[in-house]
Amino acid sequence: MAYSLVVPPASHFHTSTLRSMASSILSRHLASSLRPSRGLSASGHRHQQTTAKRVEEVEFDGPCMKTEVPGPRSKILAQQLESIQSVVQVNFFCDYEESKGNYLVDVDGNRMLDVYTQIASIPIGYNHPALTKVMTDPKNMGTFVNRPALGMMPPEQFSEKLVNGLMAVAPKGFSRVQTMACGSCSNENAYKAIFIWYRNKMRGTPEPTPEEVRTSVINQVPGCPDLTLLSFMGGFHGRTLGCLATTHTKAIQKLDVPSFDWPIASFPQLRYPLDQFERENAREEARCLEEAEDLIVKWNQKGRHVAGVVIEPIQAEGGDNHASFDFYTKLRGITKKHGCAFLVDEVQTGGGSTGKFWAHEHWGLDDPADIVSFSKKMLTGGYYQKDSFQPDKPFRIFNTWLGDHTKNLLLTEVIKVIKTENLLDQAKRSGKVMLEGLYDLQDKYPHLLSKARGIGTFCAIDVKDEDTRNLLLLKARNKGVVLGGCGTQSIRFRPALVFKEHHAHLFLDIFNDAITELK
Amino acid sequence: MAYSLVVPPASHFHTSTLRSMASSILSRHLASSLRPSRGLSASGHRHQQTTAKRVEEVEFDGPCMKTEVPGPRSKILAQQLESIQSVVQVNFFCDYEESKGNYLVDVDGNRMLDVYTQIASIPIGYNHPALTKVMTDPKNMGTFVNRPALGMMPPEQFSEKLVNGLMAVAPKGFSRVQTMACGSCSNENAYKAIFIWYRNKMRGTPEPTPEEVRTSVINQVPGCPDLTLLSFMGGFHGRTLGCLATTHTKAIQKLDVPSFDWPIASFPQLRYPLDQFERENAREEARCLEEAEDLIVKWNQKGRHVAGVVIEPIQAEGGDNHASFDFYTKLRGITKKHGCAFLVDEVQTGGGSTGKFWAHEHWGLDDPADIVSFSKKMLTGGYYQKDSFQPDKPFRIFNTWLGDHTKNLLLTEVIKVIKTENLLDQAKRSGKVMLEGLYDLQDKYPHLLSKARGIGTFCAIDVKDEDTRNLLLLKARNKGVVLGGCGTQSIRFRPALVFKEHHAHLFLDIFNDAITELK
Repeated sequence: MAYSLVVPPASHFHTSTLRSMASSILSRHLASSLRPSRGLSASGHRHQQTTAKRVEEVEFDGPCMKTEVPGPRSKILAQQLESIQSVVQVNFFCDYEESKGNYLVDVDGNRMLDVYTQIASIPIGYNHPALTKVMTDPKNMGTFVNRPALGMMPPEQFSEKLVNGLMAVAPKGFSRVQTMACGSCSNENAYKAIFIWYRNKMRGTPEPTPEEVRTSVINQVPGCPDLTLLSFMGGFHGRTLGCLATTHTKAIQKLDVPSFDWPIASFPQLRYPLDQFERENAREEARCLEEAEDLIVKWNQKGRHVAGVVIEPIQAEGGDNHASFDFYTKLRGITKKHGCAFLVDEVQTGGGSTGKFWAHEHWGLDDPADIVSFSKKMLTGGYYQKDSFQPDKPFRIFNTWLGDHTKNLLLTEVIKVIKTENLLDQAKRSGKVMLEGLYDLQDKYPHLLSKARGIGTFCAIDVKDEDTRNLLLLKARNKGVVLGGCGTQSIRFRPALVFKEHHAHLFLDIFNDAITELK
Repeated sequence: MAYSLVVPPASHFHTSTLRSMASSILSRHLASSLRPSRGLSASGHRHQQTTAKRVEEVEFDGPCMKTEVPGPRSKILAQQLESIQSVVQVNFFCDYEESKGNYLVDVDGNRMLDVYTQIASIPIGYNHPALTKVMTDPKNMGTFVNRPALGMMPPEQFSEKLVNGLMAVAPKGFSRVQTMACGSCSNENAYKAIFIWYRNKMRGTPEPTPEEVRTSVINQVPGCPDLTLLSFMGGFHGRTLGCLATTHTKAIQKLDVPSFDWPIASFPQLRYPLDQFERENAREEARCLEEAEDLIVKWNQKGRHVAGVVIEPIQAEGGDNHASFDFYTKLRGITKKHGCAFLVDEVQTGGGSTGKFWAHEHWGLDDPADIVSFSKKMLTGGYYQKDSFQPDKPFRIFNTWLGDHTKNLLLTEVIKVIKTENLLDQAKRSGKVMLEGLYDLQDKYPHLLSKARGIGTFCAIDVKDEDTRNLLLLKARNKGVVLGGCGTQSIRFRPALVFKEHHAHLFLDIFNDAITELK
């Protein structure tokens, strides 16, 4: 296990980082350095584009850099913030009023093409007019000013907004949804739903024994049973204590925090591009599947039953690790064979960037999962569940707010925009440009780049080592592209769904420029 | 331990409940049944009130009931919602546009005095003009439409809003605050901060060993240490797995969910009113303090160190259980003596309803806590922490959103209103009317009511048994007062801070009427 305690996805305000940034490239207008390359006719030039009218109407025509990032204003604000809060993770401060579409504007007036989108959580770009309209509609005011306890006293339009929002994009086979406030809460509650379902199944009735009732309040078996969840190395499912027990990415996220001793299986370490290494990848996947099934059998035998298996369709935070659709199909089969719930965590993959609304749809299964959790680009957290996972009694899955109805209102509009503007197809097209461009770049710089991979715009590439990756992130940012890291040496690309082919070309140009500046 | 699996704080849409409700009192205009009583001259009559002008300007002059609750429209909406979500907890559907001040209006046009306020989470009443103004201010639009990853790319006004919001009401001794999305996430992350702090202290350095780094990723000691938190029977700190290990209220919240084996101390079971039973209450508190300290010593000795103690200033969900300021003072002393962090959970008690902004301020201590967590009426979740609890490295306490800046904007205005309208003093005055009225009621109905208790408007009373309590909640609601239960047989009163003396009188009148209808 690498000792990787500090993994900044981009620069922050550490003195040492500031020093290293001061010595990096000078601030300058980025636009002037853009040049058509690799046969692109019009990167960033609006008038030559025929597609993308809608977004262009409210968007800038390219990055525009005035200072290094963070600039002087960001630094002053960071100093102010530092007196009340940690700023070690802060990259820079933003002007969210001025940001538009794919462009994030910072407080120093730097305008950057955003290929990270607030850690993959901005669905249709900044200040989309459809969302502004929701906010200015007087009939939504009551929802925005008064936050309901959604589980007890929902607003009149609650059902309707769920039907036109979350349920309009429900994965196949799911007719029920539970909203939550964030990704971690979504998984925490999904885990609880799994445990409750599994115990009901074990005891053959939802009615607990008096002994179970008594012991549950004091954290003891049998009321708090010794059930487990199987997760995968490299998986990320959140940072609260339950989620954290299934998260296995970086030490810094878990160190010093007590955890549950639950089974952890290997996630396939595949060679890319996947279609060129099918046979050896299949062997690796078979090994991992066998290990997962062995763990389930073994843990069941020792009485610490595996109630569920939790996995991402693509391991995101862990380094954009892919597995084949066949792997997931077989894993789903294993969960059915052993009576485990199958939770597909689509917090980062969901919402359309893979070219399908849910990444697991690529598997092509009729019964892909028992629970699908979401957050980020869905604006609200929550999970879809099969009927059998809904607890029969009140207050088993509950909290004060159960999400935030303002997010449901916004999401309903986001989904409309995705449909009317065919943004899933857009993600496929832009993703094709991106991935082909990344292949070109790794061919051009084989000593620096490798493992270009992706589905839709959900792409990534590896850099030769962690330090070089971090330096490349900084260089790209100072040239007007915001990117994020993942895993130990990967860069993840997470544009919004309004990211069009010409944005992809523009991104590739700037990224290429940044690479050439690496020693 | 009582077998109390289903504890509805008020009616919901279970068939059986609907049946029992159908047989209860008829729908009617409540206003007509109001009469001055116990010397009150003007309950609910605006023109005779001299105080309370500001709120009255935007408020109704009393409840107005048109149907039973839930009414026909609520029932139809519940049927619709039931096809996609559990409705077993739903009380009724609300018209949040029409609700104002202390009055919650439902979709059937019933207007109710709200003494529960969305599970104690509405600070200054419904649709307060100051909050509407925040929402309609065009310069806030960017914040509402684009949700930032606050830990990485905060908006320009982030510091300023924290300074004028959360930090303007920071408890004594706290200069740092961390925002989170909800109460559970706040405590989960506060727990992590405690564990990190404790381990750093144990090892004498924040730098882990390679063995710790390696094992942390796979949930094993020493990386994931076997540390514990001490909590109290009857305490409630949230429902995610970490929080749930410190929550010991009702079986239904914990049953079937794996937990941590952590020490649990008795919370004092006091006799009320506290000032009449000082000596025996002091004995009970001494017993509990001794038990808590014994547990810390014992668990430390067996190597499962108690890193922190977590407690509410008043156990709310657990039944509005109070302990004396002396108890908390001594408990704080014990945590210092044994090097445990002291986390005061003010999720429900914080925000002003006790007459001080934080309930723990009543203890009068210079160094009351190491961490104070909040949510609900603070609109955002989060916690204040001493400097030493802020992790030295990035991404130890982190998630995508780290709260929601829209809530910080609203909170800043809430705090202004609390200050300019002297709402803490208001809570003291209204609370005095409430508590005296509750004393009167329990004198009048000693076979039904007991243990009236409270600080400020944070009051409660016990009903003779759970079924009677639940029936009383329904009767009060059909007469135009929304209340909530807590513990096994208590009613908790949680009005907003704009709840004035005349609201208290009005509430007492209606509550009295409801009681008289109990067989």
